[in-house]
Amino acid sequence: MAASAENERPVKVLGWAARDSSGLLSPFEFSRRVTGEKDVTLKVLYCGICHSDLHNVKNEWGFMSYPMVPGHEIAGVVTEVGTKVTKFKVGDRVGVGCMIGSCHNCANCGDNLENYCPEMVPVYGGKFSPDNDNEHFVFKFPNNMPLDGGAPLLCAGITVYSPLRYYGLDKPGMHIGVVGLGGLGHVAVKFAKAMGLRVTVISTSPSKKEEAMNHLGADAFLVSQDAEQMQLALGTLNGIIDTVSAVHALLPLIGLLKTHGKLVMVGLTDKPLELLTMPLLLGRKIVGGSAAGGIKETQEMIDFAAEHGITADIEVILMDYVNTAMERLAKGDIRYRFVIDIGNSLKS
Amino acid sequence: MAASAENERPVKVLGWAARDSSGLLSPFEFSRRVTGEKDVTLKVLYCGICHSDLHNVKNEWGFMSYPMVPGHEIAGVVTEVGTKVTKFKVGDRVGVGCMIGSCHNCANCGDNLENYCPEMVPVYGGKFSPDNDNEHFVFKFPNNMPLDGGAPLLCAGITVYSPLRYYGLDKPGMHIGVVGLGGLGHVAVKFAKAMGLRVTVISTSPSKKEEAMNHLGADAFLVSQDAEQMQLALGTLNGIIDTVSAVHALLPLIGLLKTHGKLVMVGLTDKPLELLTMPLLLGRKIVGGSAAGGIKETQEMIDFAAEHGITADIEVILMDYVNTAMERLAKGDIRYRFVIDIGNSLKS
Repeated sequence: MAASAENERPVKVLGWAARDSSGLLSPFEFSRRVTGEKDVTLKVLYCGICHSDLHNVKNEWGFMSYPMVPGHEIAGVVTEVGTKVTKFKVGDRVGVGCMIGSCHNCANCGDNLENYCPEMVPVYGGKFSPDNDNEHFVFKFPNNMPLDGGAPLLCAGITVYSPLRYYGLDKPGMHIGVVGLGGLGHVAVKFAKAMGLRVTVISTSPSKKEEAMNHLGADAFLVSQDAEQMQLALGTLNGIIDTVSAVHALLPLIGLLKTHGKLVMVGLTDKPLELLTMPLLLGRKIVGGSAAGGIKETQEMIDFAAEHGITADIEVILMDYVNTAMERLAKGDIRYRFVIDIGNSLKS
Repeated sequence: MAASAENERPVKVLGWAARDSSGLLSPFEFSRRVTGEKDVTLKVLYCGICHSDLHNVKNEWGFMSYPMVPGHEIAGVVTEVGTKVTKFKVGDRVGVGCMIGSCHNCANCGDNLENYCPEMVPVYGGKFSPDNDNEHFVFKFPNNMPLDGGAPLLCAGITVYSPLRYYGLDKPGMHIGVVGLGGLGHVAVKFAKAMGLRVTVISTSPSKKEEAMNHLGADAFLVSQDAEQMQLALGTLNGIIDTVSAVHALLPLIGLLKTHGKLVMVGLTDKPLELLTMPLLLGRKIVGGSAAGGIKETQEMIDFAAEHGITADIEVILMDYVNTAMERLAKGDIRYRFVIDIGNSLKS
């Protein structure tokens, strides 16, 4: 059996894996199949660290098994392509995001929404299939899109871009709120501004005002604990992108919405939130969700970002700093995304 | 002052009013202005009793003051019209629903959504203005629409019709759920069937299955407490109209929705419900609200109902039974709407 497994997956690769629910990452050798006819093999140069990785390495959502090599904001350069690959060639600058497989037959796959396919295979923690890793799940990075600042767009970027589009919160002149100014929120401000929206950042931290308005270009800033500020802003927003994954109050946010306003949750909370129906009814408002985006839309998002000069604000680290970075991320001590420089980590 | 008030409102009328938070109704004489130039005066013949009247007579939502003459599903015959009234003439069969005034200037009024106007004047419990009661807020009853079974459509009917339209749950072949088979739910089933939808009634009471399927024409019935039935129905519905105003679990309902499914709340719960965001995110689902409908859409609803032979299933009562009827309604002991026969009550 060992010999057979080696025949099937003869390519030795190195990752950093979590081995148990401590979530601590350490070097881990494993093996992959040779490049299949539709496969794209890439040298990973950068990988962003998303808040969901924090949950997954500790298996807090229960989806995972060990050993686990996390990471789903991956950018690199193509080193080999299969004989039937048509979209990529060796040397292309590419990315891989949250998923590497889907059924290609269901209604969602037909609608370019592989992310909502019931058989979607996440890039880590999923079940291997020979159909995974094919070129359909690889994104092209335009020439002016850096690999380091672009990598986080593959999760953080599409997670906020897709709901702006799907929920129709993308019409110039609309006024939206962004709750939480972290990895997702800071990119949401950038996309919303590029779409011609007026943007109010809503945060528990008054200290983020300067950064939100002067650096990210938000038009206004609301401290969610300031009752007077919140009162003055009642009924002013067409929609809200809520990136907060901690338990928090929805009622004040719903109050900020105009009639027909949309509160879109993109942060995964693991405990229930309280929902009063009356304000939804009386303003025909909605609370919706959105999770990442399909392959076609993710490529559109990257192209839109390149066109508008949007990247994530990052702190680049070497691989052996990753466990410290995870601790800092858990405390919110990062503006706004850690990205691991894999290429230089391997050299050193 | 008394003389002046009598000059301004010289028309003596009789209603039944609640005088305090006991909610008990008893005869009450009050006065109205003479018919103004845009006013429509009608002889009220029937009035439905809505679950919200139960809350209001006890002022449980805090919107109300006493004395209060409840009722917002009103049908009758025009007895006088003002000189500038163009849509109605004496003898017309008409209805008045939830509201009698709005600002006519805001964005919602411009969009024919007077029900979401911040200055909307409810038919009772609101503040009087000379602009109220004008013909804009009166509905025509088509010849084949009975006044008794049609009256409840002015609240119960539009409350379920409007969200089916607004949330796009009106495409033939779609499959929707209706939660709660009461005054709203039973009309929701009728409208949804008339739109060509497949309808599943979801109820805590297995005893309602026979009625739902054989009498109302539902295609399927789910007992919400039956875990096996609910499991089998996971991911099958395009949308749900949830008419329940008691605190209840949303998670099992959200589970019944397909990707992009919509759970629409139309029952006013006064306590918060628990909302887990994960199922919203992973299926891009929404929880929305809807409250009654605008004047234009309400007339469309009445015309649609007349065309499809839709009326509410009613128990007609005389006025002096109203307090007993309110008690029975509080216990759910009515299939499905009480309607007071005002005309015959006045004779007797």
